[in-house]
Amino acid sequence: MSSIVVLLVEDESMVLIDVEHSLVDAGFEVVSATKGAEAIRAFNDDPERIEALVTDIRLGEGPTGWEVARHTRSVNPNLPVIYVSGDGADEWPSLGVPNSIMITKPFVMPQIINGLSNLLNEGGPTSS
Amino acid sequence: MSSIVVLLVEDESMVLIDVEHSLVDAGFEVVSATKGAEAIRAFNDDPERIEALVTDIRLGEGPTGWEVARHTRSVNPNLPVIYVSGDGADEWPSLGVPNSIMITKPFVMPQIINGLSNLLNEGGPTSS
Amino acid sequence: MSSIVVLLVEDESMVLIDVEHSLVDAGFEVVSATKGAEAIRAFNDDPERIEALVTDIRLGEGPTGWEVARHTRSVNPNLPVIYVSGDGADEWPSLGVPNSIMITKPFVMPQIINGLSNLLNEGGPTSS
Amino acid sequence: MSSIVVLLVEDESMVLIDVEHSLVDAGFEVVSATKGAEAIRAFNDDPERIEALVTDIRLGEGPTGWEVARHTRSVNPNLPVIYVSGDGADEWPSLGVPNSIMITKPFVMPQIINGLSNLLNEGGPTSS
Amino acid sequence: MSSIVVLLVEDESMVLIDVEHSLVDAGFEVVSATKGAEAIRAFNDDPERIEALVTDIRLGEGPTGWEVARHTRSVNPNLPVIYVSGDGADEWPSLGVPNSIMITKPFVMPQIINGLSNLLNEGGPTSS
Amino acid sequence: MSSIVVLLVEDESMVLIDVEHSLVDAGFEVVSATKGAEAIRAFNDDPERIEALVTDIRLGEGPTGWEVARHTRSVNPNLPVIYVSGDGADEWPSLGVPNSIMITKPFVMPQIINGLSNLLNEGGPTSS
Repeated sequence: MSSIVVLLVEDESMVLIDVEHSLVDAGFEVVSATKGAEAIRAFNDDPERIEALVTDIRLGEGPTGWEVARHTRSVNPNLPVIYVSGDGADEWPSLGVPNSIMITKPFVMPQIINGLSNLLNEGGPTSS
Repeated sequence: MSSIVVLLVEDESMVLIDVEHSLVDAGFEVVSATKGAEAIRAFNDDPERIEALVTDIRLGEGPTGWEVARHTRSVNPNLPVIYVSGDGADEWPSLGVPNSIMITKPFVMPQIINGLSNLLNEGGPTSS
Repeated sequence: MSSIVVLLVEDESMVLIDVEHSLVDAGFEVVSATKGAEAIRAFNDDPERIEALVTDIRLGEGPTGWEVARHTRSVNPNLPVIYVSGDGADEWPSLGVPNSIMITKPFVMPQIINGLSNLLNEGGPTSS
Repeated sequence: MSSIVVLLVEDESMVLIDVEHSLVDAGFEVVSATKGAEAIRAFNDDPERIEALVTDIRLGEGPTGWEVARHTRSVNPNLPVIYVSGDGADEWPSLGVPNSIMITKPFVMPQIINGLSNLLNEGGPTSS
Repeated sequence: MSSIVVLLVEDESMVLIDVEHSLVDAGFEVVSATKGAEAIRAFNDDPERIEALVTDIRLGEGPTGWEVARHTRSVNPNLPVIYVSGDGADEWPSLGVPNSIMITKPFVMPQIINGLSNLLNEGGPTSS
Repeated sequence: MSSIVVLLVEDESMVLIDVEHSLVDAGFEVVSATKGAEAIRAFNDDPERIEALVTDIRLGEGPTGWEVARHTRSVNPNLPVIYVSGDGADEWPSLGVPNSIMITKPFVMPQIINGLSNLLNEGGPTSS
């Protein structure tokens, strides 16, 4: 059985590796990027392949996580979006996209797996 | 008893008058604006006075409804936001703010009153 | 401004008139039917025109409200559906469609107006 | 058609009259009380008759709105409960009951009508 | 401590084994069936024992997953129901039951575990 | 990365150990107590450290789980609260706090992990 592909964007390599490991463990396939521009490029390469986005907010130079989410949602309006950040939570009400989840650091991995599951289960025909 | 003040932004005067009338009828107090810049000015004059935003998307020159919402939410992260539009619904998943409602034209007035009531009832301590 | 068309199905003429009056008062346009077969015919005549269904369960001979809802949803998977009934509520968990609302008699008109508003506001791009 | 009976508890007579008027206008039948003890007595007289509770928090001497809600819910676990108050909202997270709505003053009447409709539509078999 | 019994219905034996393994791993007890008629028989043997249903849609000859869900819900109106399918998602809005979840293949196991947890946590007294 | 601290209150030591093990496995840090008074003391020692409460209802002598939840919520109104109990579910609608989850025994561990994740993901800026 093929799997569900998550685009994971995180500039701290330790966190990236941890989250990637947890996602793979849960059965997801992961495309990872450490910069916003790299994430957008990876998405544009094959937009239909990416079925969910998990992104940090601060990504060094270039597009922020807010911008990555906005770009991917402009192509796929139903894309599940999860923001993970230590300090961007205050801006989520004004810069986040609708139907997204904001997870603040520190967090535990089940929050991401659970958030993705909730958003995916509601996708396609929405769960009632 | 004082009332709840809604900032209403709409550049079609016929729709503005209709919606304003319905809001006043429902007991709300209305501050209205026909342009984005005017709306932002009205909000900045006294941000604590405005308790909800109902905004059209296309507002002629200047800031769009997306930008008005983002500005007001950056000051008041809990502000209830309702977008009303004939043609902006497709952009809502990428340009809207979290916890907002998108109402597409044509609509009936109870959709706005009901949307505001839902968002207000969940504000402060959130309804369970 | 054109309005939102509700297909209203009810075999008790007194209730039909009351609900129709309330819907029109709220700004909706109403197509009414007193039998299931008549409702399905009215829907099939122009499926795109009907934007919501409010239906009683027991409709004398012919299709029940459960069947009317299932038929209309098979054509328009996003159609808002409200069942109104004195005695069908027990069967709703097994015979109702997902994302529908069950209103039991006696009821007050705002329950229908509010239910329709909630379902319509969540349609198209879903409210967050 | 018989109606839905709401127990309304409010010690400010001006507010009581306003809310009662709005509820009756919306089609509800109202049993009103100005004290907590009176409200509990009215409920105990015929618990099955009362189908929803709208209560202020501060009620002078005797039981508060928190206590009225807890008593009525201990008899009818599915009773829709709405608290309306100018200053009790801070205590709602620790003293309110589950699945209740907190409305803070100032409010508009549609918030109460809408809140009741939402809770009633979800009652019996829950709306999906 | 005794556990929660899930009725699992799936005609592809590879998927059946995978899902069963994941459910057992998560602490559930599993009653499995590969045909709709077998599932209904297993349920009827002891309806109170089954606390949740996870069912594929296409089940070869005999009752489909839609019919299995409708039968079990007619006996237990609160039964959590999850549909898992590669091609039945389009029919869910017209053939599914209220308060059910539709998971489309490909999926990851946490979607099922998470879906069951959400539905079970809301059962009995509903989570707020 | 530091973790999320859960206050776990359970007077059956076998259950306490099982749940604690599952929480630690999921990445949480656990402060455990076997009595209500002990739980309240542990919370009061450093209220900001505790980020969620998982509590049994019956705790032998002293405060019940209902009272522990009410105390912790009076200090931290946004604290995620999960009740786990074999026999307290009937009282949840009158004695529970808003936005809490009731899990009845028997349960599986993912119900707790999933419940915590849902409540934490909605905390801070609420997920849309």
